[in-house]
Amino acid sequence: MAVTWPRGFRSAGVACGIKSSGDPDLGVIVTGEPALWAGAFTKNAAAAPAVGWCKSHLSHRVRAVVVNSGNANACAGEAGHRAVGETVVAAAAAIGCEPDSVLVASTGTIGIALPADKVVAALPATVAGLSESIDAFAGAILTTDTHPKVASHHGSASIVGVAKGAAMVAPNMATMLAFVATDAQLSQSDLDAALKSAVGSTFDRICVDACESTNDSVICLSSGIVPVDVDEFTAGLEDVCADLARQIVGDAEGSTRIIRIRVAGATDENAAAGLGRAVAASTLWRAAVHGSDPNWGRVLAAMGSVDRELAVDEIEVSLGDAVVFRRGEPLATNGGAHAAMKAGEVVVTCIVGKGPGAAEILSADLSPDYVTLNAEGST
Amino acid sequence: MAVTWPRGFRSAGVACGIKSSGDPDLGVIVTGEPALWAGAFTKNAAAAPAVGWCKSHLSHRVRAVVVNSGNANACAGEAGHRAVGETVVAAAAAIGCEPDSVLVASTGTIGIALPADKVVAALPATVAGLSESIDAFAGAILTTDTHPKVASHHGSASIVGVAKGAAMVAPNMATMLAFVATDAQLSQSDLDAALKSAVGSTFDRICVDACESTNDSVICLSSGIVPVDVDEFTAGLEDVCADLARQIVGDAEGSTRIIRIRVAGATDENAAAGLGRAVAASTLWRAAVHGSDPNWGRVLAAMGSVDRELAVDEIEVSLGDAVVFRRGEPLATNGGAHAAMKAGEVVVTCIVGKGPGAAEILSADLSPDYVTLNAEGST
Repeated sequence: MAVTWPRGFRSAGVACGIKSSGDPDLGVIVTGEPALWAGAFTKNAAAAPAVGWCKSHLSHRVRAVVVNSGNANACAGEAGHRAVGETVVAAAAAIGCEPDSVLVASTGTIGIALPADKVVAALPATVAGLSESIDAFAGAILTTDTHPKVASHHGSASIVGVAKGAAMVAPNMATMLAFVATDAQLSQSDLDAALKSAVGSTFDRICVDACESTNDSVICLSSGIVPVDVDEFTAGLEDVCADLARQIVGDAEGSTRIIRIRVAGATDENAAAGLGRAVAASTLWRAAVHGSDPNWGRVLAAMGSVDRELAVDEIEVSLGDAVVFRRGEPLATNGGAHAAMKAGEVVVTCIVGKGPGAAEILSADLSPDYVTLNAEGST
Repeated sequence: MAVTWPRGFRSAGVACGIKSSGDPDLGVIVTGEPALWAGAFTKNAAAAPAVGWCKSHLSHRVRAVVVNSGNANACAGEAGHRAVGETVVAAAAAIGCEPDSVLVASTGTIGIALPADKVVAALPATVAGLSESIDAFAGAILTTDTHPKVASHHGSASIVGVAKGAAMVAPNMATMLAFVATDAQLSQSDLDAALKSAVGSTFDRICVDACESTNDSVICLSSGIVPVDVDEFTAGLEDVCADLARQIVGDAEGSTRIIRIRVAGATDENAAAGLGRAVAASTLWRAAVHGSDPNWGRVLAAMGSVDRELAVDEIEVSLGDAVVFRRGEPLATNGGAHAAMKAGEVVVTCIVGKGPGAAEILSADLSPDYVTLNAEGST
């Protein structure tokens, strides 16, 4: 079933020549009227110029988002900054708006300036081909993703999102590119709050390789057509973001299964999330999951490395439904634990105390293919 | 050339049946007289009972260190604690000393109690076979290491060290097992200070997979025969620890080359070490090194993820002697950069500002073999 954008949005995706493979690498979303928007971005000190450009336009209404894949345009010097400027000017001309109304996002190799001439040359025809279908755009923003990632929620208003992930996925805000459009009518502050809440419980809770990106961006656009209840909208937005986040983890580079890390009993939610992220970042645990090895000691070692006061003797660890460690004692791993390690989604639950803090982190297994993919030449 | 212990030390190594392979898995060092000692241990909250036992005997003179490989005896419940007790009692009986004079160390799989009966049964014959040769001991403490790791320094006094590493090597204190013996005559406080200094600049500056272990232990024993100059001794001890640390990184699980990360110009040494460790922990950078790919953008992204105030435009990055990023501008990677990525030791230098802080971190590349090794069944 083809997914279309909510009312007020159109998009396109083309190959403009950034990728030597000839695959699609340029996507554009255009709004009918100047749209309210909210964003969440990487905190990396080496953030790309595209991130800086968007953050400096947080209070502007926008008409378009231009996204390229195949080149992160980060750490690319003056030429990288110029490429952003040339892109927004060309997009504005093609659409008929001010350059300040154009947002940009990039993903790909770091350290090489975006060839803006290719983007500029392709923009007029790309804009001429805009449609309500999401497909071409969703395909054009991918890098090593194996398939497009689209999610939608239809309540009073429609919320439709698209994302790309693959690698360099770490839990500090966005961790990838995601674009969400809605026809919901909201105030700027309500949209900001809804996105912050949704990102915090979804994109901020996934971790593939603990490598934070220079280009993470989540952009949520609103055409403001349909009055909505803010709480209902926030719940719907969270649904869409959660769906996209899970798709990103499920398509992590080289991975074969999702790891769901549940932490409960911590002093607070942040503490629980911190413990979960430590497990998610453990290459040893992720390798064990790849081999379906119930090596839960690596889970305890990972948690013990970030919380020096962790009361290991009070922790209960389960793989699936099988308890493997309780009150300081290892329990024999039985058929249940082994079966849990072979599931498409491996669930590890850690009850670390009696506190109210709980959180879930999604990760993926570490495979030899991840290494092979990332050992390939960038230059 | 066979390496022997300094005067006052003998050792042995045997296979007692912990490893199903039948490989050596039990090593013992015995001193002629009660020896002064200093130690440095993992800070992991899930630290093994062996670590707790040693830390509680820091003020005691000791007669022996019993080391087993193939089983970490961590997170192993009451049986794990009992195994330590049974081991020190049996060793004390075999040697003729008090159990409080016996230190222990373990390495291997987490979550399974050490089969103390095998250790207890083997100890009398092991002690009967003590010699001044280091070889059998150095072999018995290995896990997935491909070769023994021995280093020595001969000044006024002799300093001889042996270590094991392989995986779960993270920079927070020791990160593996190392045993150093010397005939130097030192006060307890001088020995403590010398070991702290040597560990801080060596074992604390290596990072293979950023996975902190539950069993890291560095134990330095002194038989107190030869008067020494403390500064000369400290320098010699640092030489031995640096040699062992480099051997550990050079034999990291699945790795094919060492990565030397040099950071200079930071506000202080700790800041420089923190940036270097972030690069060392980047699976993406380590995978790039495995493929000899000069993908230096991953170095900047890693540093930018731990220092939000990093002035990326002021950083200079070099691969070997080839500058690849300077004053915010990428420079074309030339033959020099590509050659540097193919060297047995890949040197990446980051000058991050004008501060006085500098540090070097040693890491190793990430290979598909690391994943394969760690996906193998533990149970």
